[in-house]
Amino acid sequence: SRSINLAVIPGDGIGQEVVAEGLKVLSAVLPQDVKLETKEYDFGARRYHATGETLTDADLDALKKHDAILLGAIGDPSVPSGVLERGFLLKLRFAFDHHVNLRPSKLLPGVSTPLAGEPQIDFVVVREGTEGPYTGNGGTIRKGTEHEVATEVSVNTAFGVERVVRDAFARAQARPRKKLALIHKNNVLTFAGHLWTNIFNKVAEEFPEVTTEYMHVDAATIYLVTQPERFDVIVTDNLFGDIVTDLAAAVSGGIGVAASGNINPSGEFPSMFEPVHGSAPDIAGQGKADPTATVLSVALLLRHLGYEAEAARIDEAVAADLGERAGKPARSTAEIGDALAVRVAG
Amino acid sequence: SRSINLAVIPGDGIGQEVVAEGLKVLSAVLPQDVKLETKEYDFGARRYHATGETLTDADLDALKKHDAILLGAIGDPSVPSGVLERGFLLKLRFAFDHHVNLRPSKLLPGVSTPLAGEPQIDFVVVREGTEGPYTGNGGTIRKGTEHEVATEVSVNTAFGVERVVRDAFARAQARPRKKLALIHKNNVLTFAGHLWTNIFNKVAEEFPEVTTEYMHVDAATIYLVTQPERFDVIVTDNLFGDIVTDLAAAVSGGIGVAASGNINPSGEFPSMFEPVHGSAPDIAGQGKADPTATVLSVALLLRHLGYEAEAARIDEAVAADLGERAGKPARSTAEIGDALAVRVAG
Ligand SMILES: CC(C)[C@H](C(=O)O)[C@@H](O)C(=O)O
Ligand SMILES: CC(C)[C@H](C(=O)O)[C@@H](O)C(=O)O
Repeated sequence: SRSINLAVIPGDGIGQEVVAEGLKVLSAVLPQDVKLETKEYDFGARRYHATGETLTDADLDALKKHDAILLGAIGDPSVPSGVLERGFLLKLRFAFDHHVNLRPSKLLPGVSTPLAGEPQIDFVVVREGTEGPYTGNGGTIRKGTEHEVATEVSVNTAFGVERVVRDAFARAQARPRKKLALIHKNNVLTFAGHLWTNIFNKVAEEFPEVTTEYMHVDAATIYLVTQPERFDVIVTDNLFGDIVTDLAAAVSGGIGVAASGNINPSGEFPSMFEPVHGSAPDIAGQGKADPTATVLSVALLLRHLGYEAEAARIDEAVAADLGERAGKPARSTAEIGDALAVRVAG
Repeated sequence: SRSINLAVIPGDGIGQEVVAEGLKVLSAVLPQDVKLETKEYDFGARRYHATGETLTDADLDALKKHDAILLGAIGDPSVPSGVLERGFLLKLRFAFDHHVNLRPSKLLPGVSTPLAGEPQIDFVVVREGTEGPYTGNGGTIRKGTEHEVATEVSVNTAFGVERVVRDAFARAQARPRKKLALIHKNNVLTFAGHLWTNIFNKVAEEFPEVTTEYMHVDAATIYLVTQPERFDVIVTDNLFGDIVTDLAAAVSGGIGVAASGNINPSGEFPSMFEPVHGSAPDIAGQGKADPTATVLSVALLLRHLGYEAEAARIDEAVAADLGERAGKPARSTAEIGDALAVRVAG
């Protein structure tokens, strides 16, 4: 009999509320014969304030035993910027080698977009997750003086770039339009840019059916608002991916519906799934947060674990729910979760 | 009697065509008593192919003698990516210490935007121009092998950050709304991020009337498409500035109307003014390019040299011209230039 042994990290702010709904929908969609075990972990601001810890080796050992991780949100204004990001979120991505950061963008019918007209948006960004400017390499000298110098080192390896580029080509190959765009800034960041471009062109030879294009990250932001239908699969560096996926989320319905997977494709470590939005402390605890992005992250989680039919049922339920929202009064976090749970069960 | 001694760099592709119109409008707007001298320089792809040179020390010596530089566009697909960018455009910015890269975004009446509704857009980005990931620091080892490692080093100094932050505060102070946003990614790029944030907060104390906010670059792209009216002045790092100014141009009428100044505020070196768009080789030589961004760059140039009334006349002429475009047949590059020249003269 099948089973899913899930680590659950509600985290800070609205993380608690949205994760509860994600689990509700997960339970509702799973067939009877699949045994779902969940274990909740207390990470984030509360634990940091209480113990000074963000993510210990013992935590990583414990998390490692799970099939996957569902995360709500981590972050609170009471913690200095960078502490939980570098100490928890990025530490986990690096420790579990989450090199494929998967972020689909699809504008569903009935969902509003800041763009004029009726843009067709359906693409997925494959963002590198373990290299680039995110490595934490760099430093500061003469801190706080008028002679301070601070550096940030973007580290890019053939190994790290090739595996994510290959993953993106495989995803493009499996989609009807079979298009892949590389986004970088190879005219300025020539060292990293040439590495990315050369590997992209080399791997392209193995995927003759995939149509490729290259664009600079600055130009890409223009296309994302003027011709978003142009994109099918995008592969890009960690920092450029951070930027373009927030913009992509904004144009395709907002971060209320943007899901993401931090994936370790080999399965050596559990992958982690989380909404793109943050902990939104301003609305935390009020039952106002939209759990849809978390529910869609559960669909990515199920797809990653091989439950394709169940993932598709969630996607359909969300599409149907979003399609009926216009003009209706706003529902609470739990009401949206209940409605989605009913749909996926039915 | 007054005079302007201008270096003119038409460059590649449509650069030639748009610069001709920029000069036409410049001549038309200047009062009789101002003597305009121009000297044309041949830089870009043609010169690179003929001589292998992009920008020599002798070139820099010659350019240095001018009061300002007007540039059309540099770049051609026949030249490998990075050669003209690093060898000419960035070399000039660094050699002439163009640390204030000024990019206004204003959505003028009658101009179409990809955004729905009727957004009010009127802000200016002060992009740092001589530091950050643009320094060319970094390198490659084991090039072309499966063990290649490529690094890019973002270099940030208290000196370099403070001068551009101070410039941005002064600009914010001089505008009616007096708002300044710092855009960075200080939760991940903690070394550079803390330098920027600390200096920003320190300089803020000298400008108590300026309302400040900080936002991460990823969040900024969301606000640029969902709440662009939120922005008044933005100050940011070289690379983030590159990205957000293209997005800003896209939402505020397109790069056909986006002007920029690469400014050396002390006047030690001449400042350079150029449209944000590139050389557009696909439409070069056809008289189709819109010279408006170049004409607006001429206005920035005049303002920089102290010709405020003339700059304002150009801005007004462009606003009037753009306001009358809707529904009319497209005009040629020269026709638009002629129309603007007539307006500024009249
Ligand atoms: C919170 C932060 C560390 C993170 C990132 O920059 O990757 C977030 O913006 C994201 O996109 O997941
Ligand atoms: C062409 C390139 C070097 C340049 C930059 O990245 O600064 C351009 O994109 C710009 O914004 O002026």
